[in-house]
Amino acid sequence: MPVAMHEFRLIAAIRRVLGVEPAPPLLVGAGDDAAVLARSRNPTAVTTDSQIEGVHFRLAWLKPRAVGARAVEITLSDLAAMGARPRALVAAICFPRRFPMRDAISLARGVCAAGSRRACPVAGGNVAVYDGPLAVTLTALGELPGGRTPLLRSAAKPGHVLCVTGMPGLARLGLEALARGEESNRQLSSAVRKYLRPRARLKEAEFLAAETRLGAAIDLSDGLAGDLGHVLSESGAGAVLRPCYPRLYRTMCGLLDLDPEECFLGPSDDYELLFTVRSSSVERLGRLFRERFRRPLLAIGSICAERGLWIENAGGKRRRVTLASYEHKT
Amino acid sequence: MPVAMHEFRLIAAIRRVLGVEPAPPLLVGAGDDAAVLARSRNPTAVTTDSQIEGVHFRLAWLKPRAVGARAVEITLSDLAAMGARPRALVAAICFPRRFPMRDAISLARGVCAAGSRRACPVAGGNVAVYDGPLAVTLTALGELPGGRTPLLRSAAKPGHVLCVTGMPGLARLGLEALARGEESNRQLSSAVRKYLRPRARLKEAEFLAAETRLGAAIDLSDGLAGDLGHVLSESGAGAVLRPCYPRLYRTMCGLLDLDPEECFLGPSDDYELLFTVRSSSVERLGRLFRERFRRPLLAIGSICAERGLWIENAGGKRRRVTLASYEHKT
Repeated sequence: MPVAMHEFRLIAAIRRVLGVEPAPPLLVGAGDDAAVLARSRNPTAVTTDSQIEGVHFRLAWLKPRAVGARAVEITLSDLAAMGARPRALVAAICFPRRFPMRDAISLARGVCAAGSRRACPVAGGNVAVYDGPLAVTLTALGELPGGRTPLLRSAAKPGHVLCVTGMPGLARLGLEALARGEESNRQLSSAVRKYLRPRARLKEAEFLAAETRLGAAIDLSDGLAGDLGHVLSESGAGAVLRPCYPRLYRTMCGLLDLDPEECFLGPSDDYELLFTVRSSSVERLGRLFRERFRRPLLAIGSICAERGLWIENAGGKRRRVTLASYEHKT
Repeated sequence: MPVAMHEFRLIAAIRRVLGVEPAPPLLVGAGDDAAVLARSRNPTAVTTDSQIEGVHFRLAWLKPRAVGARAVEITLSDLAAMGARPRALVAAICFPRRFPMRDAISLARGVCAAGSRRACPVAGGNVAVYDGPLAVTLTALGELPGGRTPLLRSAAKPGHVLCVTGMPGLARLGLEALARGEESNRQLSSAVRKYLRPRARLKEAEFLAAETRLGAAIDLSDGLAGDLGHVLSESGAGAVLRPCYPRLYRTMCGLLDLDPEECFLGPSDDYELLFTVRSSSVERLGRLFRERFRRPLLAIGSICAERGLWIENAGGKRRRVTLASYEHKT
């Protein structure tokens, strides 16, 4: 949904206030997918996210129970991107005045059930009633299994291959289908489902981190260009993308009159994992991933030393992409 | 500020959804001041709170920086009530569209500075811009020092003395003074300060728990009758209150045409600690507390086996109080 320029400037300004250098007991502070508190042997990862009606979702598209479940998966996605295993959720829910009691209970049930499915019980929370839209703020605590080091945005190295656990832009196609009332078109159903029912890539992240030493990792919540931009700026590197659009993806783009490259790069709530890994590990990792999850791991490009972002076509021709043109759009 | 009946019913309904029996890894689940996650030797306490403009505070009364600091102290107050030491804060802030950037930065600075003062750095957070009032949701993580057991609402025993770290109702007097434009009256200034700049009783709680074995504990955020009601229902006990109103308190009530007993019992954002302790410890504890903090510890009554709440006057005459008459008022 539309994100104002103002919001990005606010976030950037507040990040500067929070500072970049984490103070003890923080191992990782603000600016990554989750913060990490170093305590005893198992560090605790913590992350928070607000889902607001009219900004992040619409009640016309989702039942209250699904709103709760969606908020859980979105919040846990940040833990996945740190390689952390969820331990507990805390919910702060602001209900509009006259929000039906039955719907409020359904929403709470949705949060609890989704948490339980992820072995991540709701530890408690806060409820308020106010003159504003439904706003669900969840905070998730996780732990790094076996004292493993957290997956950071800053660990991409030139030569690393860029991989994603699913096609960037699919959720954007689903959102567009919903916004245009095209959600019953069967060719768009996988995209609509992707937008409405995202799944945090927790098992995938844990599997990948156990199989090989990963480089940088982030979850795709703003869109590929934006999130990759974070990785590149934190890692002091650049990237060359070699996108390959599957036939159904092209068909969906055609139905919605959207450009595949714009969908691929632009804002999209995919909650897939974007990570980098040494090129020598990619083939084996892709095979193991497909065996385990019955889906392909997508290699979409590579990290280079020169700062910037390029798109390379099948013929090997490169074109520079400016991040700004994707960061502040719908 | 006014709290709708609806909100209490919503909270109660959602508590039922969350359930009362904590599942692993939760040592304490929903329904106390904070949840406690049992991990390794030092359990982690976690709590969340939303402060919303127009519901919990007004920007006409507080500068943005003070809004941030107040939210921190209010959130940490729940950790104090568990006997936990703050470790990290996570902030989710929803700003109204067109909220001035300068004010947003001041607010974030207020959160960070207040966190730093409490040795509790801001680990990260989330910022959103929406069509609603300023809403600051903070989640605090704490640890129980030396593996101490958390202070629960359920541990009050008949014979225990009820103590508070400050006079219940003082914040209500401050709120009334502000609402009526009487905040410049010097006799009301301590009450106004109490409402605008609450201080979590972290040092007090840690000191008390180190000096003696406390019974139940809760922080006063809803008002004495409401919060004591939680302790009594969780502990399966009753209480007899023997209030004593200091002269200034009576003067303030007179200026605002309020009944001292109603202020004492009714809704008030005091963020003082209410706890129970064996009667044999009270005198020594009171003396040590006064030496350490230069303020009195107030013994305001005692726990009895019979369920219910009574007020006893100086002559020893008891009168039953119904909780409901205080819980759902302004």
